[in-house]
Amino acid sequence: MIHFSSSVSSLRASEIRDLMSLANKPDMILFSGGMPDNDLFPLEEVDAIYNRLSTKEKQIAMQYGPTHGIPPLLDSLSDYLKKKGLPVNDNKILITTGSLQAINILAHAFIDPGDIVLVENPCFIGAISAFRSYQANIVSIPLTPAGIDLEALEQTLDTLTTPPKMLYLTPNFHNPAGTLYHRDTKLKLIELMRNRSIPVLEDDAYSELYFHEEDKIHLETLKAMNPEGLDICYTGSFSKILGPGLRLGWMLVPEEIYKKCELIKQSIDACSPSFTQMIAHKFLESGMEQEYLKRIRPEYALRAETMSRLLRELLPEGCSFTEPRGGFYIWIKLPDSLDATDILKTAIAKGVVFVSGKTFDPHGIANNHIRLSYCNSSVAKINEGIPLVVDAIRHHQQQVVR
Amino acid sequence: MIHFSSSVSSLRASEIRDLMSLANKPDMILFSGGMPDNDLFPLEEVDAIYNRLSTKEKQIAMQYGPTHGIPPLLDSLSDYLKKKGLPVNDNKILITTGSLQAINILAHAFIDPGDIVLVENPCFIGAISAFRSYQANIVSIPLTPAGIDLEALEQTLDTLTTPPKMLYLTPNFHNPAGTLYHRDTKLKLIELMRNRSIPVLEDDAYSELYFHEEDKIHLETLKAMNPEGLDICYTGSFSKILGPGLRLGWMLVPEEIYKKCELIKQSIDACSPSFTQMIAHKFLESGMEQEYLKRIRPEYALRAETMSRLLRELLPEGCSFTEPRGGFYIWIKLPDSLDATDILKTAIAKGVVFVSGKTFDPHGIANNHIRLSYCNSSVAKINEGIPLVVDAIRHHQQQVVR
Repeated sequence: MIHFSSSVSSLRASEIRDLMSLANKPDMILFSGGMPDNDLFPLEEVDAIYNRLSTKEKQIAMQYGPTHGIPPLLDSLSDYLKKKGLPVNDNKILITTGSLQAINILAHAFIDPGDIVLVENPCFIGAISAFRSYQANIVSIPLTPAGIDLEALEQTLDTLTTPPKMLYLTPNFHNPAGTLYHRDTKLKLIELMRNRSIPVLEDDAYSELYFHEEDKIHLETLKAMNPEGLDICYTGSFSKILGPGLRLGWMLVPEEIYKKCELIKQSIDACSPSFTQMIAHKFLESGMEQEYLKRIRPEYALRAETMSRLLRELLPEGCSFTEPRGGFYIWIKLPDSLDATDILKTAIAKGVVFVSGKTFDPHGIANNHIRLSYCNSSVAKINEGIPLVVDAIRHHQQQVVR
Repeated sequence: MIHFSSSVSSLRASEIRDLMSLANKPDMILFSGGMPDNDLFPLEEVDAIYNRLSTKEKQIAMQYGPTHGIPPLLDSLSDYLKKKGLPVNDNKILITTGSLQAINILAHAFIDPGDIVLVENPCFIGAISAFRSYQANIVSIPLTPAGIDLEALEQTLDTLTTPPKMLYLTPNFHNPAGTLYHRDTKLKLIELMRNRSIPVLEDDAYSELYFHEEDKIHLETLKAMNPEGLDICYTGSFSKILGPGLRLGWMLVPEEIYKKCELIKQSIDACSPSFTQMIAHKFLESGMEQEYLKRIRPEYALRAETMSRLLRELLPEGCSFTEPRGGFYIWIKLPDSLDATDILKTAIAKGVVFVSGKTFDPHGIANNHIRLSYCNSSVAKINEGIPLVVDAIRHHQQQVVR
């Protein structure tokens, strides 16, 4: 008889897990995973970095590092964030084992069982898991094409009898919705949240993957706006700008929050891998990261455009989506009568896989969306796979009509 | 006003932190850290491994992997553990971001706030932090030179009105005490714990670093004994047999426990670094790990012998220690009248640093021991540093006598 903790019972395996097992079938077209394309990794750059490391740098790479990160990476990341306009001097950086760990640590820092966390609906599944693992009471606010629904947020804040402990947001190229918040939404959000003692967790994993220079005005992060009277815990990641296999992310947070988070990290894994931190440091310091981004942005843009064009041409009436302006995802709204899991099963039989909407519903129910990732498939695969997705949708739509 | 969770208040910064900041002074002799010597890392082997990786392997290294680990490492680690006699077929492996993460995940799986966890006294500080971060009620059992005090353990089990959720042990080359449990202690421990529904967390980070072949009979792990009626959660690490900068460890646990732990890991960091997993896999698969251990065991043995010999010659009356038969540490008992932190401050002024006993007291009080690490210092540095440690002890002993 094994007596598990009560927090474990609130965790559940997601559908994604089963989908991933399908990823091994050689011919399956994968619109499911939120990972960069294997063929786009900067392997030559990493080779050059590794082979230029000095013995001393290799020793640092093999050794424990400080909990908050190895000093060279802290320096180069600080420069990188400064260039993005972030208030590095007034805050502290904590290097984390992927940005999911940053979210998990912040959840641990703020959430007692039953505490309310506000999130967007839909929401990144990893963040939902992290909040659930600390037994948060997750309350969700709808997302509009311009960002979080500010009226709904204000109404929720006014209605709640217990104040929430945190507001979790992904304002730039949302996962799964692809949404880029309008600058106005960001400014109004700050006004709404100011002086409420509710920290905002701003998840910024995708902002480097913009497709249009003119969007930069909207891309400015809440953290870079550095508002008074509002604690913003900013998280970022090397997963989309170098490689998720390095498992490196960061948080940029006020010092008081940093101190608690560092203690929590000490109890989780002591420090993040020095080995990959050294590689990430050289990648930033050498400027390779800027060159690499210049190479991959148009490639992801081409994939997004290809997928969007096909969907516009082929999707039946009643389906809708907003063309992404960056990031990895297209979020298709289905007619309410359709269930995404039914469509997914049919699609898998046809040789294409994606993720159903309920995976990203914090309450695990709403299932009238599908998430298509274009990040991990060539243009040829997109051309091949989208008609199959559309066929699967049409198949179920016809069944409903009958 | 920031409202942190209640669990965070139970975490505190340890003295180790301040000591580490001293590690940067160039001439300081470091008997403090539990890290391998920079000069002993297998850098040439890692170079050879990296430069032989195929493009496909490099892509795997850069990409997300399955939560439980990349398949090639799961295979090679499984073979490695099988050779150590571990019941790999009846259990599941979960690769973790260092073995501290394995301990943290198991703590999360079992501990609700206020639950009792039994530990040895002294105890590994990382495990104490992990248990505290889930608000465990830590109850400690003394350690004897033959292993945990079985009488005290039995008495505690009989006395507790609420059964403990877990028993945490480091039977092979304990940190900080250096203790290798006698085989008899292990066998009796199993009898004592059988059919109590209290899982044992067996932390086995150091067992490869034995100095005497004849100790192998005592080194057999509880997990390898595969007892009926007792769930043993076995954890191990690449930190001492390859490099802590890779941040890789593992747990080998019954399937029911594995399932919960995998869900928890999904919410912490999704997966451990594929990049370093690929290197660890090649290190095991190639047999380099066995060659490497043959090279470092005599080196650590020489350092341990050197330190032990000097301490036997120089330590004043009233001090005692057990000569280590493996691992990284010597644990010196001071006369009760002395305080280890006072001695530490004097030692630092003399140019040598170690860790005071209370760091490893689960209750943070008992301070009549010091932990000396010989792992991270050359024989020359040991010859230079031990007289300074002894001087510091004598200095305070004389003050007490006055």
